[in-house]
Amino acid sequence: MKESGIGSQKIIRRKRGGELEYLPDELTIEEPLEIRVGRKPIATTMRTPGHDEELVAGFLLSEGIVRARDQIASISVSGDNRVVVELPHGVKLKLNSMRRFGTISSSCGLCGKTSIEAIRQNFAAIRSTNIRIDIETLLSLPERLRIAQSDFARTGGIHAAGVFGVDGKLEIAREDIGRHNAVDKAVGRAFLDELLPLERHLLLVSGRASFEIIQKALAAGIPIVAAVSAPSSLAVELARENNQTLIGFLRPPSFNIYTHIDRVIFA
Amino acid sequence: MKESGIGSQKIIRRKRGGELEYLPDELTIEEPLEIRVGRKPIATTMRTPGHDEELVAGFLLSEGIVRARDQIASISVSGDNRVVVELPHGVKLKLNSMRRFGTISSSCGLCGKTSIEAIRQNFAAIRSTNIRIDIETLLSLPERLRIAQSDFARTGGIHAAGVFGVDGKLEIAREDIGRHNAVDKAVGRAFLDELLPLERHLLLVSGRASFEIIQKALAAGIPIVAAVSAPSSLAVELARENNQTLIGFLRPPSFNIYTHIDRVIFA
Repeated sequence: MKESGIGSQKIIRRKRGGELEYLPDELTIEEPLEIRVGRKPIATTMRTPGHDEELVAGFLLSEGIVRARDQIASISVSGDNRVVVELPHGVKLKLNSMRRFGTISSSCGLCGKTSIEAIRQNFAAIRSTNIRIDIETLLSLPERLRIAQSDFARTGGIHAAGVFGVDGKLEIAREDIGRHNAVDKAVGRAFLDELLPLERHLLLVSGRASFEIIQKALAAGIPIVAAVSAPSSLAVELARENNQTLIGFLRPPSFNIYTHIDRVIFA
Repeated sequence: MKESGIGSQKIIRRKRGGELEYLPDELTIEEPLEIRVGRKPIATTMRTPGHDEELVAGFLLSEGIVRARDQIASISVSGDNRVVVELPHGVKLKLNSMRRFGTISSSCGLCGKTSIEAIRQNFAAIRSTNIRIDIETLLSLPERLRIAQSDFARTGGIHAAGVFGVDGKLEIAREDIGRHNAVDKAVGRAFLDELLPLERHLLLVSGRASFEIIQKALAAGIPIVAAVSAPSSLAVELARENNQTLIGFLRPPSFNIYTHIDRVIFA
């Protein structure tokens, strides 16, 4: 069952009428993943197993450790719960970067900076282009992501991230117990496939939009971010500064637009 | 507005009927908090401002950095977004512990360990006592916590943690954009007041129960943990091993019991 990110066990359930049942239940798997660069462990993250190489690629990208695909020679799973990154011959990570990391919880994408000034990575703002999304397309996205994610429905304990074209086509869907991990996996896939910047795309997350989610989208060059729940104050601020469109509470037929409304076509 | 953890701004809302409104909206504040021990920055966490000393106390406790109240001389807010911990004269934190931390995201409570073996802190298992909670009391808790948390209802973007007596009395309620922070604040308050172990208490969290949530409850000696949403596989495992009762999907009139059912009185 581990492959699918779902485990099972027996639980006691109290049903609506008050009667008790002893029945099998499914749980989202949460396990630590150790990330090594060469032989050196640089971080441990709590995550749902699966797509671990993508998770690591997305993490390295959104933390500003790597900027281009050719800065990674290989990313490979090494035994249970460990991923090893090999750098190209002659390339070393700066010790500074290495020391910035610690253990990352299942929804942590920003680990390791020990001063407030260091929170923000220095990613380029989104370029102004004529990329826009139609309102009916936008409203269709949560259902398209839901169809792609069976686990979420079964356990209620897993988050999803989807990379969509502005035409509404779901291009990458990933799940994880942590929202940030799900985004790292989705963005990491695109990074590994050398598809960045995703400048004709939209990122949809199943939960809230924190500062880190916006920063990860920015690292991938994504101009539109939508969340099913609320954004934070800092998420709105970062999106506004970087010319990103931020949509929250995307719950058809309603939604809120927080920044850069010009990318939504109201017809 | 910052005091209350809520900020406001103008947004565009698409209403159910399709019409657009330009109206004021409220956002949960997310800002980085730098934690220093003496002059040394040891971690930066993304959190909702407020109760910052409690957040730091709960963090130090649940990370195993401090075990008793007298291991901290003072915790004080120092300017915007910084808390300084002073140790008693002659006491030093081990460098090892100091280096384990990096930046903690808004739902990260486990930052800094760079090997898988180091994920688990070495907290004592819950003692077997005759502490039990009545089913009707249990079912009343989500509503009691909800009444205490105005912010959540307004923004949908803030989590809550409540420490209840097994008689159903809400003793501490705290909110934060991150679940783990909300728990750190609640447990930190009890720690600062020298009320640990909370062996006649229950912890209720408004979201999911991850491994870290269970570990924080264990650090505070809390025998019963209830979550409004799903627990993870590792949360169930840790609770089972440590003689903790874990309840999930506490959505009256239903709930699930994952471990140690003996502490729930079905009468």
